[in-house]
Amino acid sequence: MPRSLSTPLTRKFGIDFPIVQGPMNGGSTPEMVAAVSNAGGIGALAAANFDVQTMRTKVNAIRSLTTKPFCVNLFVLETPAPTPGEIRDALDRLQPIRAELGLPPAAAPERYCEEFREQLDALIALKAPVASFTFGLLDAASIERLHAAGSLVIGTATNVAEALAWQANGADAICAQGAEAGGHRGTFIGHPDASMIGTLALVPQIVDAVALPVIAAGGIMDGRGIAAALTLGAQAAQLGTAFLMTAESPIHAAWQEKIRLSTDTSTRTTRTFTGRPARGILNDFMLRMGRYEQELPAYPVQHALTTEIRKAAGQANRPEFMSLWAGQAAGMSRRRAEAIPAAELVRVLVAETQAALA
Amino acid sequence: MPRSLSTPLTRKFGIDFPIVQGPMNGGSTPEMVAAVSNAGGIGALAAANFDVQTMRTKVNAIRSLTTKPFCVNLFVLETPAPTPGEIRDALDRLQPIRAELGLPPAAAPERYCEEFREQLDALIALKAPVASFTFGLLDAASIERLHAAGSLVIGTATNVAEALAWQANGADAICAQGAEAGGHRGTFIGHPDASMIGTLALVPQIVDAVALPVIAAGGIMDGRGIAAALTLGAQAAQLGTAFLMTAESPIHAAWQEKIRLSTDTSTRTTRTFTGRPARGILNDFMLRMGRYEQELPAYPVQHALTTEIRKAAGQANRPEFMSLWAGQAAGMSRRRAEAIPAAELVRVLVAETQAALA
Repeated sequence: MPRSLSTPLTRKFGIDFPIVQGPMNGGSTPEMVAAVSNAGGIGALAAANFDVQTMRTKVNAIRSLTTKPFCVNLFVLETPAPTPGEIRDALDRLQPIRAELGLPPAAAPERYCEEFREQLDALIALKAPVASFTFGLLDAASIERLHAAGSLVIGTATNVAEALAWQANGADAICAQGAEAGGHRGTFIGHPDASMIGTLALVPQIVDAVALPVIAAGGIMDGRGIAAALTLGAQAAQLGTAFLMTAESPIHAAWQEKIRLSTDTSTRTTRTFTGRPARGILNDFMLRMGRYEQELPAYPVQHALTTEIRKAAGQANRPEFMSLWAGQAAGMSRRRAEAIPAAELVRVLVAETQAALA
Repeated sequence: MPRSLSTPLTRKFGIDFPIVQGPMNGGSTPEMVAAVSNAGGIGALAAANFDVQTMRTKVNAIRSLTTKPFCVNLFVLETPAPTPGEIRDALDRLQPIRAELGLPPAAAPERYCEEFREQLDALIALKAPVASFTFGLLDAASIERLHAAGSLVIGTATNVAEALAWQANGADAICAQGAEAGGHRGTFIGHPDASMIGTLALVPQIVDAVALPVIAAGGIMDGRGIAAALTLGAQAAQLGTAFLMTAESPIHAAWQEKIRLSTDTSTRTTRTFTGRPARGILNDFMLRMGRYEQELPAYPVQHALTTEIRKAAGQANRPEFMSLWAGQAAGMSRRRAEAIPAAELVRVLVAETQAALA
């Protein structure tokens, strides 16, 4: 008989399998989220870039597609106040790439991100079954409001201190994000370089430090990785890159192609796209902007300033200027059928996990 | 019944448990090696810094203590030929720290390392049951000579390309060294930064790429880590830092104390001590010399030039100038009894691994 994949976390969250679809900005859709949740895992809508109305529309779309628990993810952000000089310098550095894409010189945008507090209020009102957060620490009062709305709260930690901070503020689970993970690093205590901790080393240290269930993230692409996460003491595993390659994935075909052709050494972390370290497939944009790595404005300013470039690069099918977020195990996606439906991926992952633990 | 820990590798190597004591320069002794091998794992003597006569003496000492298989590890090195100017600059950079330790200005040493080819010939003559290598790739003819002497060969790889190169040259197993690992990075194909691949992401990619058994190394401190390595497809796990804390460990008490007090964020990789990236606990030497990180002479030159400093720092009990090699899971050593005998550590690890897989 296959080993049960039930854990205290799966029971607490009311899901069948310890599989979490990582929230990925621009990489998740209501269809993906619902497919994962309907298959017995838990899907996650990346809502950080959505205004309140869009968030409501997307959550309602998820609810029209599933009655199972799902998650909505936000970035904990302060409203930025960059100086005009900082913006001018940052735009000047980007201008050669804008010119190559046929974009005119840019002016400072009117705003750099959605207002986090408005998003949070909307999320509380939406009573999502699960709310997850990264980039910062949510205050205890807000976590209480989420709990009062019936939402469970997952806090992202890249080190033990962050996990303890989330526990102290009342989170229900910790997502332990190892250095292998694709996309943005969640670090908010200490320098990001100090928290480039491999998943295999990070997960047991967080498990030992907190009384909360831990979700392991980073470098997990198949059932072997999920089984490893469980043996390390995690109660679920979060996969991002794997779901970027599913039939429900909305990402650019060139991004998917780069993931499929990637190897173990293809990714790097970079601040060049958004001002916050994030892991993606090394490309010309990262190489050319890398000389400014430490000088660029912090997230969300650099993110806002590069948005038009990344959009234009997509329209021109020029992946050398796109943000190709992917984790260090991205190349393992070649082992799967192309455009595997997300629900089928969950089923395959469950079978692989049971085989790895047998 | 506990799950069997027997793997094709344990059977090929004639050992009871899939546990390898990592070779650690200055951190292994014949007593440690024999204790691990007698307990059913496989001990490894770090011989890279030994002249031929010392290597013979140490291997004979191991043989007087065990009849079980053991391993001897060498660095694959070319004889360096630094310019006088390079040495002068490197010594100038170190002089302030030498002065703080009461050391006089240094002259260029007569030699920078043992001659690798002499070491290799001696190792072949010693007919060690297992020979392991890092820092480079051994040629196929030398691997054949080792095989003819009855030695099995383990090649260290930090990426898939290196694992394939070792396989092509005839190695019997691959040690997959993840980014979490303490001490030196073994990277010899590509830039070291590109091969900072977390163990959880690296192991399955190497397992999928080669037909050889894989030993997982990096971030493994207890049975949960060993179990995770096995579920990822590795056939054994290598632990270094854990054995640095055993009763048989010869390392400085201050080094052990720093490991015991370390946390998940305590380590960094640095070229400052030896000219090759290595992971250790962040200290003043690394911080002060860090500005020269990219300019320092390569291993073994910088290693030779800092030897006297590290020795004097030990004698003066000043860990701020010692190389405090440790992996990213070093802080987990606090969970163990201090100075646990290496044989007892193997027994505990076996029990923990079985529990994690149960």
